[in-house]
Amino acid sequence: MKDRITKLFGIQYPIIQGGMIWCSGWRLASAVSNAGGLGLIGGGSMRPDLFREHIQKCKQATDKPFGVNIPLLYPYSDEQIRILIEEGVKIVFTSAGNPKKYTAMLKEHGIKVVHVVANLSFALKSQDAGVDAVVVEGFEAGGHNGREETTTLVLLQHLAGKLEIPLIAAGGIGSGKAIFAAIAMGADAVQIGSLFAASQESSAHEGFKELIVKANEGDTMLRMKQLVPVRLLKNPFADTIEKMELSGAPKEEMAEFLGKGRAMKGMFEGDLEEGELEIGQISSAISQVKSVAEIMNDLIEDYKSAYFRMFEIHY
Amino acid sequence: MKDRITKLFGIQYPIIQGGMIWCSGWRLASAVSNAGGLGLIGGGSMRPDLFREHIQKCKQATDKPFGVNIPLLYPYSDEQIRILIEEGVKIVFTSAGNPKKYTAMLKEHGIKVVHVVANLSFALKSQDAGVDAVVVEGFEAGGHNGREETTTLVLLQHLAGKLEIPLIAAGGIGSGKAIFAAIAMGADAVQIGSLFAASQESSAHEGFKELIVKANEGDTMLRMKQLVPVRLLKNPFADTIEKMELSGAPKEEMAEFLGKGRAMKGMFEGDLEEGELEIGQISSAISQVKSVAEIMNDLIEDYKSAYFRMFEIHY
Repeated sequence: MKDRITKLFGIQYPIIQGGMIWCSGWRLASAVSNAGGLGLIGGGSMRPDLFREHIQKCKQATDKPFGVNIPLLYPYSDEQIRILIEEGVKIVFTSAGNPKKYTAMLKEHGIKVVHVVANLSFALKSQDAGVDAVVVEGFEAGGHNGREETTTLVLLQHLAGKLEIPLIAAGGIGSGKAIFAAIAMGADAVQIGSLFAASQESSAHEGFKELIVKANEGDTMLRMKQLVPVRLLKNPFADTIEKMELSGAPKEEMAEFLGKGRAMKGMFEGDLEEGELEIGQISSAISQVKSVAEIMNDLIEDYKSAYFRMFEIHY
Repeated sequence: MKDRITKLFGIQYPIIQGGMIWCSGWRLASAVSNAGGLGLIGGGSMRPDLFREHIQKCKQATDKPFGVNIPLLYPYSDEQIRILIEEGVKIVFTSAGNPKKYTAMLKEHGIKVVHVVANLSFALKSQDAGVDAVVVEGFEAGGHNGREETTTLVLLQHLAGKLEIPLIAAGGIGSGKAIFAAIAMGADAVQIGSLFAASQESSAHEGFKELIVKANEGDTMLRMKQLVPVRLLKNPFADTIEKMELSGAPKEEMAEFLGKGRAMKGMFEGDLEEGELEIGQISSAISQVKSVAEIMNDLIEDYKSAYFRMFEIHY
């Protein structure tokens, strides 16, 4: 398993842990990096001081490369960018904003920059902005999602051969066979969120992790499309949102009902009824809370079995 | 490329053409079968006499195995089942209904039966009903679709190792690399709709084929979820449906606006404004109307290049 992404980041496996709000602090990121993948601290849910603390703790916890994820829609992004430069972070994933904003400046500091997109035109814009790679994220992904609802399978085929920079596939990937499939379709690596959100090292509330492993098909849906589309686990909060959507409620009313801090309440504090539980569709195929080391090992073994399956079919 | 499905049907490649309304008559089905795949006559849009005529013409046009698709939600299914038995059809795909209804009777006539599902529980029910294989169809697929919005990538991982009968992956597959990926993830074969809907041999209106090859990301959406979810190409008709959905229109009102014959009007007669244009999300990656022979050849070459890509990465 060697490719452009492993060389770019200096990692062993082309497996990147998604930088998720309320799930991926230093503990998860360092565990993934120590296991040979690329761990990312999810900056989205952290105030600047806490963000700095997580970076410092992550440096203590691993001597392997790790990175941070900065969604460009929160008020702290300027300050977070300043902090990560000060702290010598070498890999930054940006999402939900304009890749032109920080890319050139980050690259002047010798930082590798990756931008997250959900279609070809933003992938090309990111390439033009000078990023080192793009994450292409499909409809299956948890949390914030594209408006076009294009799935990972379709995105990979639509983008095939159209980018010069490396491509990281995300959304719906929860097994080694899916990693194998994504790479066969042209991805250089994958980004995995839900599986790591449900890991022992995730900072998600244990009650939320239990719901992820219990989730079945149809238990996550893309909601709040009138605001920003978000993939959510069904619960009383999500049911109310659905009712509002079906009755044609105006988006101001929905924004007011959503309020602030719903994701923290659900994912971090464990209010499983009224909190917002962001998770991917692949949670239906996750059946156990495991350590990161076990997850990585299982992914690699399952990848190998997909490889041997294809080898067997063809010889 | 040898596996359980090619043996089951006696075909060369594990590629099955979706039995689509208004697109797949005898001309398309026989062309796919002649090219080494499995062609299916789409019974859904045919009155009994026309259905018989298409079967008879297909028998004239190919000496290779072919089949028919019967959606169990139309009034003619009893009569269509009687006709296909009389005509000696040996392969039947059923969809949109209870697999118990006809499976035992069809099998007594020596007919291979496949049922189309969109989740694990219906796949297991179909297996219990005695079908020979299931088609598992994801959110990407054109036309009628599941309510749970599970994508093909997630379905394949969720179902991995849980079925004894062969599994055919459908939805979002429009290239050889996606066939390779689906098989690596455990599918025995794939079913392809959109690519064949846009083929020269498809009976779809030429204007509709032109729209398919022009379609970009986001140009198809899943609509009419309150009635039966259907993936549609965006056009003035679909835009009106979207507006009704966003304003919370009751489903009776939507059913009345939909009326009857919209799909024939759009897909067959070429009313591209007010007709219903059912097509898959993968149409964004389809750029040319080709003959079935070219499509099959391209799929196989692209499959091989995915295989060599993985071979190169690992040696």
